[in-house]
Amino acid sequence: MTEACPVLPQRGPVRPLGLARVSIAGGFWGGRQAVNAAATLAHCEEWMERLGWLANFDRVADGTTGPDRPGWPFSDSEVYKLLEALAWESGRTGDPEAEAAIKRLTARVARAQDQDGYLNTCFGHGEQAPRYSDLEGGHELYNLGHLMQAAVARVRTHGEDDLVRLARRAADHVCRTFGPGERAGICGHPEIEVGLAELGRALGEERYVEQARLFLDRRGHGTLRDIPLGRAYFQDDVPIREAAVWRGHAVRALYLTAAAVDVAVERGDDELLGAVERQWERSVARRTYITGGMGSRHQDEGFGEDWELPPDRAYCETCAGVASIMVSWRLYLATGDVRYTDLIERTLYNVIATSPSPDGRAFFYANPLHQRAPGRASDDGEVSPRAEGGTRAAWFDVSCCPTNVARTLASLECYLAAASDDGLQIHQYAPSTVRAELPDGRRVAVEVETGYPETGTVRVRIASDEAAPWTLALRVPAWAAGATLTEGGRTRPVDPGLVEVRRAFRAGEVVTLELPVRPRITWPDPRIDAVRGCVAVERGPEVLCAESVDLPHPGGLDALVIDPHSDPREDSGGARVRARLRPRAGTTADVGDGWSYLAARPDAAGDAAEWFEVPLRPYHSWAQRGPSSMRVWLPIHE
Amino acid sequence: MTEACPVLPQRGPVRPLGLARVSIAGGFWGGRQAVNAAATLAHCEEWMERLGWLANFDRVADGTTGPDRPGWPFSDSEVYKLLEALAWESGRTGDPEAEAAIKRLTARVARAQDQDGYLNTCFGHGEQAPRYSDLEGGHELYNLGHLMQAAVARVRTHGEDDLVRLARRAADHVCRTFGPGERAGICGHPEIEVGLAELGRALGEERYVEQARLFLDRRGHGTLRDIPLGRAYFQDDVPIREAAVWRGHAVRALYLTAAAVDVAVERGDDELLGAVERQWERSVARRTYITGGMGSRHQDEGFGEDWELPPDRAYCETCAGVASIMVSWRLYLATGDVRYTDLIERTLYNVIATSPSPDGRAFFYANPLHQRAPGRASDDGEVSPRAEGGTRAAWFDVSCCPTNVARTLASLECYLAAASDDGLQIHQYAPSTVRAELPDGRRVAVEVETGYPETGTVRVRIASDEAAPWTLALRVPAWAAGATLTEGGRTRPVDPGLVEVRRAFRAGEVVTLELPVRPRITWPDPRIDAVRGCVAVERGPEVLCAESVDLPHPGGLDALVIDPHSDPREDSGGARVRARLRPRAGTTADVGDGWSYLAARPDAAGDAAEWFEVPLRPYHSWAQRGPSSMRVWLPIHE
Repeated sequence: MTEACPVLPQRGPVRPLGLARVSIAGGFWGGRQAVNAAATLAHCEEWMERLGWLANFDRVADGTTGPDRPGWPFSDSEVYKLLEALAWESGRTGDPEAEAAIKRLTARVARAQDQDGYLNTCFGHGEQAPRYSDLEGGHELYNLGHLMQAAVARVRTHGEDDLVRLARRAADHVCRTFGPGERAGICGHPEIEVGLAELGRALGEERYVEQARLFLDRRGHGTLRDIPLGRAYFQDDVPIREAAVWRGHAVRALYLTAAAVDVAVERGDDELLGAVERQWERSVARRTYITGGMGSRHQDEGFGEDWELPPDRAYCETCAGVASIMVSWRLYLATGDVRYTDLIERTLYNVIATSPSPDGRAFFYANPLHQRAPGRASDDGEVSPRAEGGTRAAWFDVSCCPTNVARTLASLECYLAAASDDGLQIHQYAPSTVRAELPDGRRVAVEVETGYPETGTVRVRIASDEAAPWTLALRVPAWAAGATLTEGGRTRPVDPGLVEVRRAFRAGEVVTLELPVRPRITWPDPRIDAVRGCVAVERGPEVLCAESVDLPHPGGLDALVIDPHSDPREDSGGARVRARLRPRAGTTADVGDGWSYLAARPDAAGDAAEWFEVPLRPYHSWAQRGPSSMRVWLPIHE
Repeated sequence: MTEACPVLPQRGPVRPLGLARVSIAGGFWGGRQAVNAAATLAHCEEWMERLGWLANFDRVADGTTGPDRPGWPFSDSEVYKLLEALAWESGRTGDPEAEAAIKRLTARVARAQDQDGYLNTCFGHGEQAPRYSDLEGGHELYNLGHLMQAAVARVRTHGEDDLVRLARRAADHVCRTFGPGERAGICGHPEIEVGLAELGRALGEERYVEQARLFLDRRGHGTLRDIPLGRAYFQDDVPIREAAVWRGHAVRALYLTAAAVDVAVERGDDELLGAVERQWERSVARRTYITGGMGSRHQDEGFGEDWELPPDRAYCETCAGVASIMVSWRLYLATGDVRYTDLIERTLYNVIATSPSPDGRAFFYANPLHQRAPGRASDDGEVSPRAEGGTRAAWFDVSCCPTNVARTLASLECYLAAASDDGLQIHQYAPSTVRAELPDGRRVAVEVETGYPETGTVRVRIASDEAAPWTLALRVPAWAAGATLTEGGRTRPVDPGLVEVRRAFRAGEVVTLELPVRPRITWPDPRIDAVRGCVAVERGPEVLCAESVDLPHPGGLDALVIDPHSDPREDSGGARVRARLRPRAGTTADVGDGWSYLAARPDAAGDAAEWFEVPLRPYHSWAQRGPSSMRVWLPIHE
């Protein structure tokens, strides 16, 4: 069996390490993986059963389906993402329940596959619209892309089985239908590309990679019909290698970009890789939230213009966080640059960790950075029609996020570390073990002990006894000014980036990275208009926030002004920042008589206002204590 | 003939004055009315002919229509709004071309009316969906509401004719279909209510007013099916008399509210009137832009939460400006309160005047207060599929705004003044004449001479010779601190509000109001997060803005910081404000290495940066000199 991981490029400066090489034992992420396994996977299957999304497959098989089929055209993909999550989970832990669910679901899906490999519950059967009659909105190829990613997980953790075989038949069908000289179509929602590219790698089917390349090359030439939101919505406005920045629907843009990295790497297409790197740079600098969240607009679930980053209407779809990690991980594997794994850390702690509730049975779809009015406590049995609302929902009408979180958590080990030609690189810190066999046959291994991010101490214990020197490389996050490394009895300051120790290690030796996780104030670029006059507080990789439930009077949240010149404090109760309240009553009544645009500067905070301390908590934990209003960006006292 | 104006309540503290009583001669608005008459009216008819929206009526008449009919279901309403504009124009000036167009269009519309009064080109004919099969989205009653408003204009300026008769038949049909004991439906887009109420007044048909009341009372009880945007989108979430604030789709909310005022006044329903007044208060204080614009969200063209007022994504649909004026004018007529006519002035100068291009052949649909990237110069022959883009477009796929502007400009005289029991009130200042007959038979008249808003001097020359004393009341806008009134050889300071002079006037006497229109700095309420750390500059009723075309280097617009402590200056070249440039290059490159969230405060403006003066222009004139980036809210130098 090959390396059990989602992305396995043919070449690159570093090589990923799969589930057989890396394991997580408890801690921040281990706990979340356990909840994912124990609750979320079954939760997703139950909901899809309840809503008839699973029965859609049975109805195709039985010849009883029609246009009345429940669910959106992309509901099939949720089944496939759940299958992917189950495959990783089974591969990660050997969980027999996951294994049983894979077989159960695969059997139902397999019955719905047409003789020629076509597989879809919304088109092409009975009175439904014909196959591929709505490439803009039909999501048929999108669905299959997720099926292929599930098959990649399965073949790499288990080997060929029914799931893999049906994905293979689907991929063959796609190549026959949309291959060279055939219909020159593309899907309105990218995903088939990344699915085909990886399935091609996993099965050694070069044709699939080539088909992915074809789909990529067709995009950006007005191949799809125009829609009211414009062709940028599905990135059919500009060829991918000519684009300067990510735009349009964020998940679409990012799935497409992930595939572009795959194809660039497989084809040695450095021009394409360079284009994607430049798009990443500009988009991350100008169109990304402090949380790592992407997508500034509700209207099209899309990126905004440069610097358009409103905290209150931040969309920051959970799935865009998943997709951003897919892109950055591929770029890291292609370049070895730690800036990509820096962004992955930020996104993991502040988008992925934010979505699920502690019990793994409710989720945020959108992840705004400011909630003005507390959300409504949602009912467990209720499908949320909308992506917003300020509380986590058990399920959504469009329910892409729960299964996306599930597959990410179930494969999280794959994003922790990588092997270089000369050793190991550790990028995400969790209680874990990491092993690798280097190209020259050396076997190296470490155990990571850490309470990160609660504490900043990361102890890397060598667990192998190679006589020859090798390189242990640890990522020092960009925010970690003042970090130190202790090894061989010596402590030294280390700069952000990849700190490397090259020598012969003996088993039991410890290399200790000390990351300064104390709360710190962060200032926004002044070009981000929406948060002018505010600061955020971060602690290690976590963005913090203030919540109304922690204030004496709930309405006080939007009257807070904080002192940016005194450092946030931390004690056993958590982080605190010095703040006072703006005299709310005085502001509009004085001058404006109900009009909010005033002839004189409203008092920022009366001299009489007393300073006090406001507790701040990790953003990912917001709204866990019931509906609450919340702010990441805190106005400063001038 | 009755008073030739759009709203004529049975009772109220003041009475409107129609086209026979008020005339505008040149000036800011006279010029725009002339362009509207000379260009916009024909422009609208041409586009509707070109796109087949007019032929839709012919196809119904000829029995050749079907589901393939071009245009949205609400395209009929554009024809009716154009008819309304033409009716006002004909009534205002007797323009034979307008009169001919009315007859031409009415004849085509009339042929499409079914025997029973039903009139719609999208439903109920041939293979089209059945009548009223989609009350949520079908807009059938909405369309008829606009037809009724057109008929109101016609009957009050001309008398009963074919247009009035066909509206009457349509109204009778609506009452039969949706009356007491019949189908308890409502329309997803309010408008029928305001149309029925006024047509009832205009034709003395009490049943129509009662039907409007019924529609209003049915709303807010989940009468319509739920939709993904939620029932608040079409105000079917809360009964209108229980609502605290405007929410959902702005134009829908405002048309509905206008009807609620009409019904409250007709029925003496002070509870309903009070509810609407409270909704106005909170919505204007917390959900309204400095321009008077309403609608903070693109997603649903809707209001946001309290204080959610992003300048860049401000929707501020032109039609919402029209609808806001409809509401405020009705509330003024119901209460006599000048705060309503204050808001009308603001909306006229900063929303209505902003939409049309100087040639009257292109329009803004959305009216954002910040444009980061210059729009694309649009092609005259092009239909803009979208409401955004930073340049005015000749026509839109959803083209509600051009005809809405047209009908407002063609009836603008009706919003200038009103009669009280004891005299005249002048609310909007334009070169004009205003006459009224008071209840006791006194005839009073004035001529207003002014270069407003270019200059702040308003000379009101008495044009009647009543021996008995009467009251001349002039609105002093809320912004006009320092205004003076000169009359009888005496000058005195006057406060914002309604300044009254009661005495016997002789013809030729002049009362002079001096309004301080010099540029002034305006501060936002600190609860408006999106413009924290910024000020705006206003001049008289006009909001000003900075445009990139006026800066030495276009990219400089978003690097401006202005000095809020020195007064804006004004010379022959216009208003100027003291500003310097933030050193752009230094901000992100220094600390963040491409990441925009920084450990240290970025320099707001280096000490080396030189102060200079930035020209400011009226917001309504932006993007008239080609694509440009633009800001209303200017960051301040701290």
